Amino acid sequence: MRIAVDAMGGDKAPQVVVEGAVMAAREFGYDIVLVGDNEKIQRELFKRGSRGLRNISVCHATEVIGMDEPAALSVRRKKNSSINVGAMLLKDGKADAFMSAGNTGAVVCAVTLRMGLLEGAYRPGIAIIYPTLKDLCVLIDAGANIDPKPEHLLQYAIMGDALQRYILKKRQVKVGLLSVGEEATKGTDFIKETHRLLNASTLKFVGNVEGGDIYTGDYDVVVCDGFVGNVVLKVSESLAQTLAIFLKRKLKQGLMTRIGALLSLPAFRSLKKEIDYSEYGGAPLLGVNGACIIGHGSSSAKAIKNAIREAGEFVSHQINQRIVDAIKSTH
Amino acid sequence: MRIAVDAMGGDKAPQVVVEGAVMAAREFGYDIVLVGDNEKIQRELFKRGSRGLRNISVCHATEVIGMDEPAALSVRRKKNSSINVGAMLLKDGKADAFMSAGNTGAVVCAVTLRMGLLEGAYRPGIAIIYPTLKDLCVLIDAGANIDPKPEHLLQYAIMGDALQRYILKKRQVKVGLLSVGEEATKGTDFIKETHRLLNASTLKFVGNVEGGDIYTGDYDVVVCDGFVGNVVLKVSESLAQTLAIFLKRKLKQGLMTRIGALLSLPAFRSLKKEIDYSEYGGAPLLGVNGACIIGHGSSSAKAIKNAIREAGEFVSHQINQRIVDAIKSTH
Repeated sequence: MRIAVDAMGGDKAPQVVVEGAVMAAREFGYDIVLVGDNEKIQRELFKRGSRGLRNISVCHATEVIGMDEPAALSVRRKKNSSINVGAMLLKDGKADAFMSAGNTGAVVCAVTLRMGLLEGAYRPGIAIIYPTLKDLCVLIDAGANIDPKPEHLLQYAIMGDALQRYILKKRQVKVGLLSVGEEATKGTDFIKETHRLLNASTLKFVGNVEGGDIYTGDYDVVVCDGFVGNVVLKVSESLAQTLAIFLKRKLKQGLMTRIGALLSLPAFRSLKKEIDYSEYGGAPLLGVNGACIIGHGSSSAKAIKNAIREAGEFVSHQINQRIVDAIKSTH
Repeated sequence: MRIAVDAMGGDKAPQVVVEGAVMAAREFGYDIVLVGDNEKIQRELFKRGSRGLRNISVCHATEVIGMDEPAALSVRRKKNSSINVGAMLLKDGKADAFMSAGNTGAVVCAVTLRMGLLEGAYRPGIAIIYPTLKDLCVLIDAGANIDPKPEHLLQYAIMGDALQRYILKKRQVKVGLLSVGEEATKGTDFIKETHRLLNASTLKFVGNVEGGDIYTGDYDVVVCDGFVGNVVLKVSESLAQTLAIFLKRKLKQGLMTRIGALLSLPAFRSLKKEIDYSEYGGAPLLGVNGACIIGHGSSSAKAIKNAIREAGEFVSHQINQRIVDAIKSTH
């Protein structure tokens, strides 16, 4: 298993990425190709005493696409960026998977451009794996396709079903469609038509899901358009952070409260870890003809390691072949 | 000031509604007309020793629209429901405002049907007032109009601006448009056109807002279509509840943690209160030619009281006249 890792992607690159890649190389034994500025990467490897690790190599890339650069434009202009070079390694068969915590739009664009779509797939979609009150849930699409057609959402449901079945080992995958009411008659025309398609499919479609239901764990896959998915993802992240800030403010008021907060610190730490979705890996880019995992921009070394593990699992469980087969069987 | 209150609306009606109405009658001196089953309401008033309160009266309504009934259909069929009767009081000038914590869709439908729209207004919109890291923010629309046009969102911005200016007393109202990226070039065609309209308006439009920015307090009004707004609202509510459940689970693990949790209980309680948006009142239904506040289905008596206060303020600050004037000046 050979995984290309964008060493320059993410808020704390290349330090954190190299650290996570070294952890992954040691723990999983994958061959890792770090893509990016050779000198900077070597320096980080040296710092970690990992220059001699036989299963880590470097593929030099002279450019970097910044986190806020316009995606399509920068992919076109910065031919030698770590994202483009990583996507080329995937295309040339020099890597089985590509992992990047860099500019999400640019990764989607570069990988879709180089690899094309899976046989039968209409559009790429970003799948987010997040914790609920019960098991992990897959939300798709989180922003690759902000103006989809109903057929795209049907395919997202098929893709999410494959992820749940073969990576998260769920036997019965319950699929929900994010809407503003549970009844099939609620929602826009787009939602109603998507509801009809999902209902007619062989998936275990359990109906419309309201915003209030996505954390209950009653659904294994939630599909929505990329605009709504992106907003839901970002609102959720920021609300969790905002509540933590509110709580910290409150916990500083009064001596007893402060002491109490100190005593229960392990609980807060453990909660923080449990809800940090980067702990579960990254976000698979589905529908493209290659294995690509997108890490969170603020990934820790551990999150990078987990995203690399996930990339390996994506390949070894042949998720893409399973998606192609499932799409075929719907026609 | 005479306010009609739907005594049968909400999960714990009529008990909690009557309790909140009695508090409002005593505290604000408004004339309150409780609309609903006379016998049940009188029983609740009797329990609270409030039968003799001179500024509380009852308007009998024989039917109730349930929280999950289809909105348009039930408004048409249940002519004598508390929601329809309340809307008629408003129409006949027997009440200055109407407050209901009942079926949101039915309230929107009944009030829009009886009162019509404000002069120049295209569509009704539901405004949610919620706490951020800084001041209170207004999000509009939270579900009245799930498939709007760009001009509708421009009007929502105008309506939200009026709420901030005259009820929340904000001098400089910063308006943001919810999207998937800050750049004007990001988002669907609908978003791009709305961005253009907002930019050309006299409002202080500060650009696109991402999902991660709505709790920062950097914006005073956030506009979005009713589908996205409804999802955001419900995701936020349920995520806050989910995190509380997660935290409770963690705080029960280990003796020290338990003791710590007990000591810091006041902080948790205080936080819960601060983020409970029903503490701030209800959600004004804007764009209709009358004053209507929609309470949360799970409103406490205090939330009902606050929503009634808000209804009074809505009338006394002539919000609707200000919206009409602002809409006129944009043409």
